[in-house]
Amino acid sequence: MTRSGRRRLAEDFRQGRRPALARAISMVEASRPGVADLLDEVLMVEPRARRIGITGPPGAGKSSLATLLAKLLRERDEDVAIVAVDPTSPFSGGALLGDRIRMNELAVDPGIFIRSMATRGSLGGLAATTREVIDLLDAFGFANIIIETVGVGQTQFEIQAAADSTVVVLVPESGDGIQAMKAGLMEIADVFVVNKSDRIGADRLVREIGQALMLRAGRASHDAPAHHGVDLTRIGRPDTAPPGGDPASAAPRWEIPVLKTSAGRGEGIDELLAAILAHGRHLRDSGELETRRERRALGRIRDVVERRLHRRAERFFASDPHLAEWVAQVKTGRATAYGVADRIVPAILSRAPEVHDRAAED
Amino acid sequence: MTRSGRRRLAEDFRQGRRPALARAISMVEASRPGVADLLDEVLMVEPRARRIGITGPPGAGKSSLATLLAKLLRERDEDVAIVAVDPTSPFSGGALLGDRIRMNELAVDPGIFIRSMATRGSLGGLAATTREVIDLLDAFGFANIIIETVGVGQTQFEIQAAADSTVVVLVPESGDGIQAMKAGLMEIADVFVVNKSDRIGADRLVREIGQALMLRAGRASHDAPAHHGVDLTRIGRPDTAPPGGDPASAAPRWEIPVLKTSAGRGEGIDELLAAILAHGRHLRDSGELETRRERRALGRIRDVVERRLHRRAERFFASDPHLAEWVAQVKTGRATAYGVADRIVPAILSRAPEVHDRAAED
Repeated sequence: MTRSGRRRLAEDFRQGRRPALARAISMVEASRPGVADLLDEVLMVEPRARRIGITGPPGAGKSSLATLLAKLLRERDEDVAIVAVDPTSPFSGGALLGDRIRMNELAVDPGIFIRSMATRGSLGGLAATTREVIDLLDAFGFANIIIETVGVGQTQFEIQAAADSTVVVLVPESGDGIQAMKAGLMEIADVFVVNKSDRIGADRLVREIGQALMLRAGRASHDAPAHHGVDLTRIGRPDTAPPGGDPASAAPRWEIPVLKTSAGRGEGIDELLAAILAHGRHLRDSGELETRRERRALGRIRDVVERRLHRRAERFFASDPHLAEWVAQVKTGRATAYGVADRIVPAILSRAPEVHDRAAED
Repeated sequence: MTRSGRRRLAEDFRQGRRPALARAISMVEASRPGVADLLDEVLMVEPRARRIGITGPPGAGKSSLATLLAKLLRERDEDVAIVAVDPTSPFSGGALLGDRIRMNELAVDPGIFIRSMATRGSLGGLAATTREVIDLLDAFGFANIIIETVGVGQTQFEIQAAADSTVVVLVPESGDGIQAMKAGLMEIADVFVVNKSDRIGADRLVREIGQALMLRAGRASHDAPAHHGVDLTRIGRPDTAPPGGDPASAAPRWEIPVLKTSAGRGEGIDELLAAILAHGRHLRDSGELETRRERRALGRIRDVVERRLHRRAERFFASDPHLAEWVAQVKTGRATAYGVADRIVPAILSRAPEVHDRAAED
């Protein structure tokens, strides 16, 4: 993309033209040349969107809930962007397709923007590019961004980092409460939803979640799992602060609600939106919103820095003539990865310092 | 740890002393000082273990199957190390505890070594330290290493990279076939197991998996999802080669079996082990084992290199006096992560070149 083309695109984006948004998103997704320069222009704006994360096991009805929430927000005359993160698979059968069709019915409404993003191999994970797309939607001016993703593995913490309010959706058949806890979904919920509430076991699941939350409230916050980066550590979340603990716990507490919905029957959606809005107010009043946004800004800086370092390493791996021999040595126990790294790392650090890392990122 | 202490530990390890193994694993898990130097000594040996991955959704009975497989292998007079990767959680209730107790009954057998590893926040993910522990067990001389982990998100590809043969365990209640595919488990199985085969829906699930596998066999291999690193791309897996495709597909094909087991009743375990052993022979005969070991060696080099680069960045983030101001600027839209990275990356690359990265890794 030429410099003037980029300028025009950025200008169109700032003027709120949808095709410019779509094109910017495509550039981010494809890591098209010039994307860092483009983002550097258009993201120069304070994030303001209400970011709602919806996560849970496959088949819990997340897409349906996202669709219904979007409709309610539209009734309040607020626009909504939905980012649906799908695990990549050569297969995509009935259930998934059904969700998407229902969601796409919304898409004729100009106040709605829907983007399905594949995760390309990092199944279920929220790629750095996904975070960039969310930032784009925020900068474009959407009042609400709903991020829907399968709540497995890393994603749980990633969606929590990307969203202001995280809704965890479970269904009676997603296994007993213990298994849900094992999968770590308990850790990240700001609002719990038991969907398909007309099914057997719904009330029992609501009770189990409630009991687990009470149990957790009684524990010290150091039980919370540490995350792998400075950016994502859960610093001072009011809802995990120990009772009578440090002064920070004097901030108003958020009691995590456990709601019942039936997306199929359209039941409980008003209450869900009310809970999300209440949590948003809690975030603002407690100062937690600022903390989360700060953490997110740091996370974005780390994203970009790590990616540039990673790409430097990749360029090295793609081009180094000795690599095959080193691999053969490690494979047969004649060398270790540590010994090889002793030689590679200095080469990566010193190599081609004249390369402009931003360009290399494209 | 002093240099002579490390030498002694390495010597004890090579002599096959269990306490030395346990201590080395603890050092890896805690990233204790000197660990890179220790591994550089003790991993100088060709990997030989049969590495069996067992993955699937929570509650599928993976631990029980691992336990029963280990018992069978012991009857063949082969020793077995089991690495159970648990998502970290402040809660660990009934089901999990039950699994572990059953597994621990094995632990009195000196031919069995069991290690439970927490994933510390990267829920379900296989940390680089887990790969190092597996390498340690291999170097120590275990004939079999069973790696058991919840098959969610990234883990799927990570366990495939760590194991020679990957067993994917599903249960009738883990959702219909479509959902299993959506979760990506279809992509990584060398052997499929439908556990709890006495439950309703087991035969239907077996049929669905079989149909999906046939469907997949008819597709071109380029449908396989790309992975994020050179090391983990699935190059030339015979079972995904297109029929009549490139010459590599002339290698013997592996027909992925779909087995039924009942860990509770001890049924189908012989057949499962037979399938794993057959897959092992297939790997050797087709040359695929060498390919997988090569890929794994490259993966280990990348692990160490990436970790050293990551720690360099972390040291920078932990100590840079301007960081708070930059974060504030990004948070309020006065700067972007890209502009900040332009300033940070060169600083990280050039900073303290005299620091020995290996020491820094400790």
